[in-house]
Amino acid sequence: MERGILVVISGFSGAGKGTIMKELIRRYDYFLSVSATTRRPRTGEEDGKDYYFHTREEFQQMIDNGELIEWAEYVGNYYGTPKKYVEEQLANGRDVLLEIEMQGGMLVKEQFPDALLIFISPPSAKALKERLTGRGTESPEEIEKRLLRAVEEVKYMKEYDYIIVNDVLEDAIDKVNDLIRYDHYKACNSARMIEKMEREIGGFSKSEE
Amino acid sequence: MERGILVVISGFSGAGKGTIMKELIRRYDYFLSVSATTRRPRTGEEDGKDYYFHTREEFQQMIDNGELIEWAEYVGNYYGTPKKYVEEQLANGRDVLLEIEMQGGMLVKEQFPDALLIFISPPSAKALKERLTGRGTESPEEIEKRLLRAVEEVKYMKEYDYIIVNDVLEDAIDKVNDLIRYDHYKACNSARMIEKMEREIGGFSKSEE
Repeated sequence: MERGILVVISGFSGAGKGTIMKELIRRYDYFLSVSATTRRPRTGEEDGKDYYFHTREEFQQMIDNGELIEWAEYVGNYYGTPKKYVEEQLANGRDVLLEIEMQGGMLVKEQFPDALLIFISPPSAKALKERLTGRGTESPEEIEKRLLRAVEEVKYMKEYDYIIVNDVLEDAIDKVNDLIRYDHYKACNSARMIEKMEREIGGFSKSEE
Repeated sequence: MERGILVVISGFSGAGKGTIMKELIRRYDYFLSVSATTRRPRTGEEDGKDYYFHTREEFQQMIDNGELIEWAEYVGNYYGTPKKYVEEQLANGRDVLLEIEMQGGMLVKEQFPDALLIFISPPSAKALKERLTGRGTESPEEIEKRLLRAVEEVKYMKEYDYIIVNDVLEDAIDKVNDLIRYDHYKACNSARMIEKMEREIGGFSKSEE
């Protein structure tokens, strides 16, 4: 059995990546990586399902032991991706989805060079601005903050493997799913199959002697 | 407009890559690169359609001038891929298909790092042997030669980007076509779109000042 594929999905706030992730998980057999955090559980949140909840000491220990693929501090709390569960699923041949920020995506790429990095983009900057302001749920300050974050984030776009434009949601879901499906045909993800061919075809020269 | 994609298709003799190529050209708008050769035209062969026919002197001149992406000598004749036509089509946004040997494929990758290299493989070494012997058109010596060539060629398999197993022909055609289609979503093939987003989103920070 070949290893599963580690898929990093990132994108601007307002690009719709959350919805795409939710639908991929609902429709297909992907494993969604659960983050570790030092934030307190909110009502209804389950440990191991929504997050792995940890104390700051435990989290620091995980950092020190190299147990996290990537981590970041956000509004006073730590968030990170535990390596263990990701590795387990990949070894079992299951594809793992990771929804993380671009800086985290770059760290994943360093440690998992064969990871598939997908960037979800709105069709245009104008569309991004409209989606953020049109939500009606964020304050002008929050919208401003997200727009300025997009200015930082756009710099990472070209570091991703693929750019999927989320114009029509169903198309975007299909495209991301297809990209993962086709990634299995990559030579680096066909190592066992190639080894088998090398061994068997190598036998031709011996049998003909 | 984004540039077209240069697609290298290689595979063992007997893997069915010729049929896949023919169907891709027939069904879709790909540009098939025409080789230059010093071999004499056979009856019915047209210059510029089947091959670009050249004298040895002309061919040597093309090599010296760096006008060929790759070239090789085979049974006393030169065969090569003229750079000019490939470049023209790519600049026009058209995807170009190149059916060449693995050594040539490696040379293309050096000069066109964004080229898409697809290796067509039979499902197993046994199937390859059966296809070669089952054709009934080649002499035992010819079959033996092709099998021994496969022993050399299998070493290049892992250098390709994707391995497509040609088990069911229609599936293999669809897969190769999809791989090319999805290659357009690669960040390296979305340069203009990324530049546009960078420019427009960069404008957010200025407009908010």
